[in-house]
Amino acid sequence: MKKIVTFGEMMLRLKPQENERIIQSNQFSALYGGAEANVAVSLSLLGDHAQFVSKFPDHAVGQAALGTLRRYGVDTSQVLLGGPRLGIYFFEKGASIRNTSVVYDRAGSSFAVSKAAEYDWAQILADADYFYFSGITPAISAELTQAILSACQFCVNHQIKVICDLNYRGKMWTPQQAQATMNQLMPYVDICLAHDEDFEASLGIKAFDGDMSHGIEQKDDFISGMKAIIAKYPNIKTVASVLRNIYSVEDSQWMALMIDHDQVFETPIYQIHVWEGVAAGDAFGAGLIHGLVKNYNPQDCLNFALAASVLKLTISGDLNLVNEKEILEVMNKQNGMRMMR
Amino acid sequence: MKKIVTFGEMMLRLKPQENERIIQSNQFSALYGGAEANVAVSLSLLGDHAQFVSKFPDHAVGQAALGTLRRYGVDTSQVLLGGPRLGIYFFEKGASIRNTSVVYDRAGSSFAVSKAAEYDWAQILADADYFYFSGITPAISAELTQAILSACQFCVNHQIKVICDLNYRGKMWTPQQAQATMNQLMPYVDICLAHDEDFEASLGIKAFDGDMSHGIEQKDDFISGMKAIIAKYPNIKTVASVLRNIYSVEDSQWMALMIDHDQVFETPIYQIHVWEGVAAGDAFGAGLIHGLVKNYNPQDCLNFALAASVLKLTISGDLNLVNEKEILEVMNKQNGMRMMR
Amino acid sequence: MKKIVTFGEMMLRLKPQENERIIQSNQFSALYGGAEANVAVSLSLLGDHAQFVSKFPDHAVGQAALGTLRRYGVDTSQVLLGGPRLGIYFFEKGASIRNTSVVYDRAGSSFAVSKAAEYDWAQILADADYFYFSGITPAISAELTQAILSACQFCVNHQIKVICDLNYRGKMWTPQQAQATMNQLMPYVDICLAHDEDFEASLGIKAFDGDMSHGIEQKDDFISGMKAIIAKYPNIKTVASVLRNIYSVEDSQWMALMIDHDQVFETPIYQIHVWEGVAAGDAFGAGLIHGLVKNYNPQDCLNFALAASVLKLTISGDLNLVNEKEILEVMNKQNGMRMMR
Amino acid sequence: MKKIVTFGEMMLRLKPQENERIIQSNQFSALYGGAEANVAVSLSLLGDHAQFVSKFPDHAVGQAALGTLRRYGVDTSQVLLGGPRLGIYFFEKGASIRNTSVVYDRAGSSFAVSKAAEYDWAQILADADYFYFSGITPAISAELTQAILSACQFCVNHQIKVICDLNYRGKMWTPQQAQATMNQLMPYVDICLAHDEDFEASLGIKAFDGDMSHGIEQKDDFISGMKAIIAKYPNIKTVASVLRNIYSVEDSQWMALMIDHDQVFETPIYQIHVWEGVAAGDAFGAGLIHGLVKNYNPQDCLNFALAASVLKLTISGDLNLVNEKEILEVMNKQNGMRMMR
Amino acid sequence: MKKIVTFGEMMLRLKPQENERIIQSNQFSALYGGAEANVAVSLSLLGDHAQFVSKFPDHAVGQAALGTLRRYGVDTSQVLLGGPRLGIYFFEKGASIRNTSVVYDRAGSSFAVSKAAEYDWAQILADADYFYFSGITPAISAELTQAILSACQFCVNHQIKVICDLNYRGKMWTPQQAQATMNQLMPYVDICLAHDEDFEASLGIKAFDGDMSHGIEQKDDFISGMKAIIAKYPNIKTVASVLRNIYSVEDSQWMALMIDHDQVFETPIYQIHVWEGVAAGDAFGAGLIHGLVKNYNPQDCLNFALAASVLKLTISGDLNLVNEKEILEVMNKQNGMRMMR
Amino acid sequence: MKKIVTFGEMMLRLKPQENERIIQSNQFSALYGGAEANVAVSLSLLGDHAQFVSKFPDHAVGQAALGTLRRYGVDTSQVLLGGPRLGIYFFEKGASIRNTSVVYDRAGSSFAVSKAAEYDWAQILADADYFYFSGITPAISAELTQAILSACQFCVNHQIKVICDLNYRGKMWTPQQAQATMNQLMPYVDICLAHDEDFEASLGIKAFDGDMSHGIEQKDDFISGMKAIIAKYPNIKTVASVLRNIYSVEDSQWMALMIDHDQVFETPIYQIHVWEGVAAGDAFGAGLIHGLVKNYNPQDCLNFALAASVLKLTISGDLNLVNEKEILEVMNKQNGMRMMR
Repeated sequence: MKKIVTFGEMMLRLKPQENERIIQSNQFSALYGGAEANVAVSLSLLGDHAQFVSKFPDHAVGQAALGTLRRYGVDTSQVLLGGPRLGIYFFEKGASIRNTSVVYDRAGSSFAVSKAAEYDWAQILADADYFYFSGITPAISAELTQAILSACQFCVNHQIKVICDLNYRGKMWTPQQAQATMNQLMPYVDICLAHDEDFEASLGIKAFDGDMSHGIEQKDDFISGMKAIIAKYPNIKTVASVLRNIYSVEDSQWMALMIDHDQVFETPIYQIHVWEGVAAGDAFGAGLIHGLVKNYNPQDCLNFALAASVLKLTISGDLNLVNEKEILEVMNKQNGMRMMR
Repeated sequence: MKKIVTFGEMMLRLKPQENERIIQSNQFSALYGGAEANVAVSLSLLGDHAQFVSKFPDHAVGQAALGTLRRYGVDTSQVLLGGPRLGIYFFEKGASIRNTSVVYDRAGSSFAVSKAAEYDWAQILADADYFYFSGITPAISAELTQAILSACQFCVNHQIKVICDLNYRGKMWTPQQAQATMNQLMPYVDICLAHDEDFEASLGIKAFDGDMSHGIEQKDDFISGMKAIIAKYPNIKTVASVLRNIYSVEDSQWMALMIDHDQVFETPIYQIHVWEGVAAGDAFGAGLIHGLVKNYNPQDCLNFALAASVLKLTISGDLNLVNEKEILEVMNKQNGMRMMR
Repeated sequence: MKKIVTFGEMMLRLKPQENERIIQSNQFSALYGGAEANVAVSLSLLGDHAQFVSKFPDHAVGQAALGTLRRYGVDTSQVLLGGPRLGIYFFEKGASIRNTSVVYDRAGSSFAVSKAAEYDWAQILADADYFYFSGITPAISAELTQAILSACQFCVNHQIKVICDLNYRGKMWTPQQAQATMNQLMPYVDICLAHDEDFEASLGIKAFDGDMSHGIEQKDDFISGMKAIIAKYPNIKTVASVLRNIYSVEDSQWMALMIDHDQVFETPIYQIHVWEGVAAGDAFGAGLIHGLVKNYNPQDCLNFALAASVLKLTISGDLNLVNEKEILEVMNKQNGMRMMR
Repeated sequence: MKKIVTFGEMMLRLKPQENERIIQSNQFSALYGGAEANVAVSLSLLGDHAQFVSKFPDHAVGQAALGTLRRYGVDTSQVLLGGPRLGIYFFEKGASIRNTSVVYDRAGSSFAVSKAAEYDWAQILADADYFYFSGITPAISAELTQAILSACQFCVNHQIKVICDLNYRGKMWTPQQAQATMNQLMPYVDICLAHDEDFEASLGIKAFDGDMSHGIEQKDDFISGMKAIIAKYPNIKTVASVLRNIYSVEDSQWMALMIDHDQVFETPIYQIHVWEGVAAGDAFGAGLIHGLVKNYNPQDCLNFALAASVLKLTISGDLNLVNEKEILEVMNKQNGMRMMR
Repeated sequence: MKKIVTFGEMMLRLKPQENERIIQSNQFSALYGGAEANVAVSLSLLGDHAQFVSKFPDHAVGQAALGTLRRYGVDTSQVLLGGPRLGIYFFEKGASIRNTSVVYDRAGSSFAVSKAAEYDWAQILADADYFYFSGITPAISAELTQAILSACQFCVNHQIKVICDLNYRGKMWTPQQAQATMNQLMPYVDICLAHDEDFEASLGIKAFDGDMSHGIEQKDDFISGMKAIIAKYPNIKTVASVLRNIYSVEDSQWMALMIDHDQVFETPIYQIHVWEGVAAGDAFGAGLIHGLVKNYNPQDCLNFALAASVLKLTISGDLNLVNEKEILEVMNKQNGMRMMR
Repeated sequence: MKKIVTFGEMMLRLKPQENERIIQSNQFSALYGGAEANVAVSLSLLGDHAQFVSKFPDHAVGQAALGTLRRYGVDTSQVLLGGPRLGIYFFEKGASIRNTSVVYDRAGSSFAVSKAAEYDWAQILADADYFYFSGITPAISAELTQAILSACQFCVNHQIKVICDLNYRGKMWTPQQAQATMNQLMPYVDICLAHDEDFEASLGIKAFDGDMSHGIEQKDDFISGMKAIIAKYPNIKTVASVLRNIYSVEDSQWMALMIDHDQVFETPIYQIHVWEGVAAGDAFGAGLIHGLVKNYNPQDCLNFALAASVLKLTISGDLNLVNEKEILEVMNKQNGMRMMR
């Protein structure tokens, strides 16, 4: 079985009950998630060998996060224990014209203050086939950027494919900082996921005008942007993107594009009633990786990734708790679904 | 007051909180339902004398099911107590493109292992005006098929009208089994409810192509199918059907057809935002029976039945917890509702 | 800082969990609200000095209501304590074609049985800039009508602007009673809010045909009605109205009109997926008052008021728990929102 | 089967979640109860034919109360529908030295404002064997006192035994009022339940010094008081009392006394860890009536009644949701229980 | 690291919220447990390599059970998937004199209908050091008895120690059946746990008179019984027992005895306020095994096992969610605890 | 009205539902508390003018904390807004022999990183009568120690009484650090609260041997310690202490001592069944201050403080949600309470 290693932060997510706002709530649902952890859980539920690498505090809250990963079958044998705290984010789901809002409380976490030298990549990646990280991890600290760099160097020397989801987060760093850092890492990347503002903020490549209600109409600009990525980093053979028209918190349309070895692929457009608009990009990435692991053809890879992604929009929490059969059903049969072509 | 007797199984329904999936949930709402019990509760809430006949285990869980029936006014004086267990089904509500899914755990229930001889129809049906069963009950066991046959024979001899909702369930038997059994029972039926796949699976009559997103467009085929039922079983004077265009878990259109003494009736189309897509067929059947009991004209019967059915889509649980006034409001005034003609 | 005094009743609102109906529920969420209290909370969250005047029972339930006001910064220093009980209303949220329904249990509350003489307006309004009441308060009792009259007389003599939301409630009084009373109060009003049936029921002015699914199409009739109010009560310089097309419990369109010093203003139309269709009129009123307090120009006042109102539709409970920044975002940027012009 | 009719008020009980106080809570559990309703439910669960007579508002909250009675098998065929509201009480469970506290909001209920003439005793009591009321009902209104008087007169003429639980409530009337009223009713009573302050407040008979932590030590005084009741009202053949040492909210000791046809009976003392100290007196009364109905000998009657009563202390809500087998187990086997003799 | 294999059934446990009874509840907490699974989870949380062997249905409910095991680190690589259903038990926690009660619904589970031949012991036990089963598993079926017999035979030939907790369940088989079966299995056992009625019911050895309120007073009888076990099955070198005085659901005293290589050990007596009196025997067994694995001396083994067991009484659910440090704290420091010597 | 200013940190407290452990929970109740905030809330509920001074992040979580204070009437007009985060603590209630455990996540909070210069004491304390702080605040940072020092100096010069609860926290600093710091602050203190380990850890004075199960037996040592405090810091005129025998999480005995102007006072001993053993010291401090403010005599002050403290043990959350009447009832009547003298 192919093994995928993902490296990043897992946080406690606190969400008020039902539709409450944080200022009125006295009950939070407590779930755990984070981009790279989400990818690992997805892959595990799809039957792949997924290992998550991170550092968790060695107390009950850290154990609860760890337990979440294990519950869904993720290999946690390389998770480090120690350090001060688990990062937290407060998640307040929006409704209609009221946007979902998030209060981050992630500074100073055990992962954030961990050192590059704590991660022994030769051991961690010994039998890995893929290494996945997102742009969130290097945004956390220079030490973690260094850790990724070390991992990437090991990968290059050991035929391990590197997958990067650019995942730009404006609350964590500026485009200037992001570009300086990502420019160091991109030369090691084989497969790149770039959505929306990622092109410009992370790589300085213009592809999307920022209007989330008209992403799909900008398909040609996205394709140009994807080509520009490949032109800039010829090591990258595959670039994939999700395009969206977000009409309201509940109502949106989704499609995806991929350039793989210079060929452009695209999916049909899904009309979705969204339950929770988080972590759909992670679900997409995991779907794409699963397709690669299973040697799907590129069109099926992309279709599978998008079907995984839109299914995530119907699930509570950061984790895409679906199995391969459920994704294939959405992808193939499209039963009882309004599909717009 | 007219008395309606319904005969079938009631189960414990376990549903994860809010939008959770079963694999992530540690809290289930516990409600009780089942096709024939649902019909009895509806009729009772509409002010009719509804009696439910079944067999429940004589322990706390069985008592809780019984209490649910009594709470809504159903006559439970003929429910048998004993046997091993109450059937259970786990209900996971879908969202958007993720279908609602159900895990059945009903085998070996007190009702399923009950014997035909346990039901004393002469006593049970002594003062009944209508006898209702659905295709689920004969699918459970040969003994229960025999019980229905005995009940039907009693009805024929005592001017009790027999109503059958075909209610084909592919997880319980094959079309071959269903047709062999239903062919025995249909000669006793006065009023037949047939939806979607029921025509073909239960009776071998072609009427619907199986595409749930385009039921309404197949209206003419449904009418042909309904006529074919009457042609095959001339004892049946009334056939009614619900037709749907299911666009997603939340979004669908509903209408109904009825042939009554060779005349075709149809309703307008309702556009519905669905809360829980279960037991709408039972609500429809109860609405139709109530119209018959109250001597509504056929068009009002059908309109009332469909209004009851679409109201069910807005209610939590299997039971259609609405009263006559609420159904009439939806049927007559259509205030604040997008009605498509 | 400008000070706004609002005068009315606050009630305990009991709502079944999630989508349950009252007859099936054994768990109620307990929140507190009421038109004038809602306005006070909105204004306080917008940074204004809002004072609520009422009478609460001096027991734990009354303290809980008082605590709710204080929690969101409302000045409760003039709330009277004593009397028999807090009014209650049971709130059952509808879904799709099933209307939201309310069971009122407000008779005999501490506020309802309070006497006009208990309210010392010279003290209460000493440093006030605005006095707000809605048509609900005079509908409660003749004593409270007298209290408002006394307050209004004080206002006229002390340059305090009087704002009245007509807020007709058919369950509390008849149009005849309402008109007789409101005709006494309107001569003191500077700013009048009139929605839907208010025109005809409260003032005997025809403006809306009662079809909630086509309010927006009757824009011209509303404008005529608003002009008729000003013609009848020349002291009123500003009239504002919300117009709606209600398609279903979840699905509606909203816009607003205002005549200010003889000039007509209107907003764009918002397409809203409604979470809870209550207290949007109060949110509108508060938004308008805030605009006045902050000296927004009339168009911005109206836009802000409507943005506040539609945001309320996405919030749980009677209180519009949003801040100025969130309203301005909806008003100005309209990001990720389907705006129909 | 013997039939017992009980007459009184049923209220909505609102209780904060877990151990919360009312002022901090935003979630109430909603249950329904009331002394005479509690007795009816107990008897029904014990297999007796129990009918509850009252008046409920004809709306969803009234229907929910009615549904609660039906759920547990109570005959509600004589409940009147109509009137303004259902009485409510807020229940805040204490802990240790913090006493349980209750906020009553029962004034003006449909039952409280009902007229004596609405109750057709000839029809209601046609086939009754026992008529039960508590001192709460006459405390509500003169009309209800008259209703009880009419019922009692019918009973005397039709060999229906009358059972009265004195149930003095200091928040509802004064000892003077209570004694004046009870003195009218007592001459019709066959069986009288008198606990704690009831002796003195309801009948002016001294028996208990008011110190709830030392009730059991006053056994001789209770016996004297019981004898005084019989001396004063020779029609009364049976008087029963519960005696308690209440050490804290959770910790108490319970025993019972009965004088039946001049013979004194007493039970052992139970040491109880109390879950919810409400409605134990109603459970005692129901247990005693059940013993009478089943012709238990006096000692068994009393033992059964006390076992029922202490079991109630372990149950959530006003209703004693236990069956005969469970009570007999506690009464007979005393397994795993610290019994102090 | 030593590896312990446990073999048995895991069930879904449904428990009403807070203190509710099943007949009143509409909300169940859903946890998963079972004697041998509980032992595996305990050992895993103590840092040991614990593997659970069983058969689960391959659907969402089975996956949830599996996820529970993985969450707490149990090796599930040998769990079989398939078969009809997961066993269920309804758990109603008692209070004071009201006993905890359980409704079993475990018949026909995937494990119960699995065949002996499905378990490939050579593979499963390849690197095992201990094999643990309880008397529940052979009580389920002859096939599972055969499976255990095969496992035991493998153990004997491969120096794997066999641990058996007699765990007699009167609802599953009779003493006659139990003794016939256990007599076949005991000759393979190295370490035997026998509590309360186990001695007589499972082995026909008299040791305890059945009075749960006086177990500790019968210490000498227990020791005689333990010696009798060793006398009868000389292969058994270690027998351990828990003795209890159960005063009420919340209030009990606990101690333990062990005979190890003919030497008798005993613990002090703990006075415990019990939260949930389930699975304390499993926690004891796991504690004892952990002591063996870690080479504690016999006295420490026993003390550790009892401390683990009483800690379980304070935890919600079947699983003893405590770590080694927490158990050692209770065992060694006894801080803030009433210890009776 | 006298005004009391308290200065310290308020945190978000996250507690698993019911009796769950953190590692198994996915639902946290979210309350807000902290020693000095708790004192302010208590005083406000007792009718005093209490002002809380601190720094909160200016986001939804900070607003929620602020709202909690306002809800209970605390003056928050001097709370600073800004900085990175609100401190958090995870609270896991113990049971019986399983200790309550807390995971602190308070580092880097807005308050912790605030500067001494941000607090303008001349303005804050302008009309104050009492200034209260606990040993937690100086333990957070040198800046906050400096802030307290500045406040104390202002107090000395303005006849504001200074109250210090030593409140030693071993997880925040060492005895050496505490003593060095407290030695600077004590010369400004008028009233000192010292419990358990505070004597030795904060001041280097031996008074208590650390065995929480035998605090009360060490009464004489406490008195010696209290005298030593006064001897060392003659500015201190009043020292008060709570003494406890903690038998288990639920079961303990409480009493209090006070030396006031060289006279020793003591209370009776309360036997308490504890709901939540947190913040009882803060409740004690608030009770004592309230007595001072109201000019109770010293014995009543102490009795009132202890009654307030033991009532807190019955309340959920950090805040002592009781009023003066409830405390006086416990203090004076001792009804239904086991009082040990």
